[in-house]
Amino acid sequence: MSERRWNPVLGEWTITATHRQDRTFLPPKEYCPLCPTRPGGMETEIPRETYEVAVFDNRFPSLRADPSPPDVEGSDITPVEPSFGACEVVVYTPEHEATLGSLPLRRIRQLIEVWAHRTVVLGARDEAACVFVFENRGEAIGVTLNHPHGQIYAYPTIPPVLAREAANAAAHLEREGTCLFCGLLAQEAADGRRIVAQTASWVAGVPFFARWPYEVHLTPRRHVGWLHDLLEPEIDDLARLLVTVVRKYDALFGFTLPYIMAIHQRPTDGGDHEGYHLHIEFYPPNRTETKMKFLAGSEAGAGAFINDTLPETTAERLRSLEPRDPATIER
Amino acid sequence: MSERRWNPVLGEWTITATHRQDRTFLPPKEYCPLCPTRPGGMETEIPRETYEVAVFDNRFPSLRADPSPPDVEGSDITPVEPSFGACEVVVYTPEHEATLGSLPLRRIRQLIEVWAHRTVVLGARDEAACVFVFENRGEAIGVTLNHPHGQIYAYPTIPPVLAREAANAAAHLEREGTCLFCGLLAQEAADGRRIVAQTASWVAGVPFFARWPYEVHLTPRRHVGWLHDLLEPEIDDLARLLVTVVRKYDALFGFTLPYIMAIHQRPTDGGDHEGYHLHIEFYPPNRTETKMKFLAGSEAGAGAFINDTLPETTAERLRSLEPRDPATIER
Repeated sequence: MSERRWNPVLGEWTITATHRQDRTFLPPKEYCPLCPTRPGGMETEIPRETYEVAVFDNRFPSLRADPSPPDVEGSDITPVEPSFGACEVVVYTPEHEATLGSLPLRRIRQLIEVWAHRTVVLGARDEAACVFVFENRGEAIGVTLNHPHGQIYAYPTIPPVLAREAANAAAHLEREGTCLFCGLLAQEAADGRRIVAQTASWVAGVPFFARWPYEVHLTPRRHVGWLHDLLEPEIDDLARLLVTVVRKYDALFGFTLPYIMAIHQRPTDGGDHEGYHLHIEFYPPNRTETKMKFLAGSEAGAGAFINDTLPETTAERLRSLEPRDPATIER
Repeated sequence: MSERRWNPVLGEWTITATHRQDRTFLPPKEYCPLCPTRPGGMETEIPRETYEVAVFDNRFPSLRADPSPPDVEGSDITPVEPSFGACEVVVYTPEHEATLGSLPLRRIRQLIEVWAHRTVVLGARDEAACVFVFENRGEAIGVTLNHPHGQIYAYPTIPPVLAREAANAAAHLEREGTCLFCGLLAQEAADGRRIVAQTASWVAGVPFFARWPYEVHLTPRRHVGWLHDLLEPEIDDLARLLVTVVRKYDALFGFTLPYIMAIHQRPTDGGDHEGYHLHIEFYPPNRTETKMKFLAGSEAGAGAFINDTLPETTAERLRSLEPRDPATIER
């Protein structure tokens, strides 16, 4: 009961996935389906007594390798397609109470390698035009399982946000002969006001045009398209920078900050995306300790984002914060 | 302290509006700034003892007729512009506890005429490329004032959602010689499964490609571009259909359903938008009585919407519900 329906007005697909309505919703820790299966305990999604990083197909997938034929008939203006693709779950650790910021660097490196490996495997499939690694963290963002985990979707067409990024990067490369992202990175490095943290090979900063108050983008200094293009020292640096950014987030208001983490890699549709530059975007929904940024009329209805803060101010705040070990935070 | 910053990666403007952080946040009824100013009481935003529909400039505007020069310098790849435009508040009634569904038809007609009038006035300004009438309702959608009201924004460039709709409508007109929206309307009328309610001149239905479970679009049968194009009987029909849809929403779970209402009219930038067809979109965030649809990783990070329900099912549910007078709902 899943299909893709074309929206000719916005020029994009909507995925319907009705079986998801009944998915597991915030179970208590003892019923967590992402914990290891312990002797004498409940059988979880992971039939092992322990693991390091676990990857498996989502039990409630919106996209799959063998979708059923659509239930509804399409038309010339509203075609319908089967939901080809993949939805995988990536469990970061067997420890139910951990977060991305509490994991040892070794584990985060491993996680980056898993993301890179799955991108290669899924991206090689004919039906995968784009592999999207992401994490939804916190109930404020709609998470249905608290155990630290992320997801990987393989879409059968390049999804709208990535398509716009790829088109603008390609147009910039065509027009200027240079990478748009490299240009932005040079501009931000020269200015400095919006930098949050940096290493030899990666830069984290609040974008000049941030939509969310504490939005942070992590960009490699070298022009690469995919996680699997990264060299060993770049993976080390990314692991360290991820921990730094997430621990700064946790220091911001003294609680585990909810966020969406979106890893934007070059599409895998076989097109020429030489101008596209790997980057990782974080969108925390909080605009203050107690108030959230909502996507309301202007954002959802017109697509015009209003940011109630100045990127220079939020970057300064994040830059000056001492990263906080999540183990010191009461949950 | 408001400006527009260009995002060259997504190809759109972000509006920064930092003074809004301190805006009035859910004041108790006796401090409501949208109530009339009563003798001996607090002076509200409306210095009158009563009114019918009130329209005035937002005290915390993101866009204005006389914006200050930007505080930050732009560059070739990230230009900055002053925040030209307008942000108006439209108060539906002096009654603090009312909702769009509890207003008498006469008042809703008046409200439609106010929306149409402000669209003409704001749309005639040089700096207004698009006039956007909307309502955010309910704390779940981020409303900061409970008094029944909507807003009108005049944007200095066509905002992304409207720009995509206008481009796709224009391309369809060019290619087929017909209106895309009229084509969708004919298809929906012939099929019938997704119709929620209709009158002689308007149709309300769940779109074939709905992103939100109980999303409903109201479309006039006649090809018109703006509210001020509507004839008297069409205004009557729209008033009745608005009440019907909102009262069905209130019957759905037995509480005042939160929603975003977005009125999509033809842009006012002087371009040729003959193919664009007026319509009103409602997005309630609820997917069940207690669970919300969040715009998380796939939606916010990739732009790919997943709908956990079938439009045929939600339309059937809304169609069969008896509209409920909001006065009978405990709040």
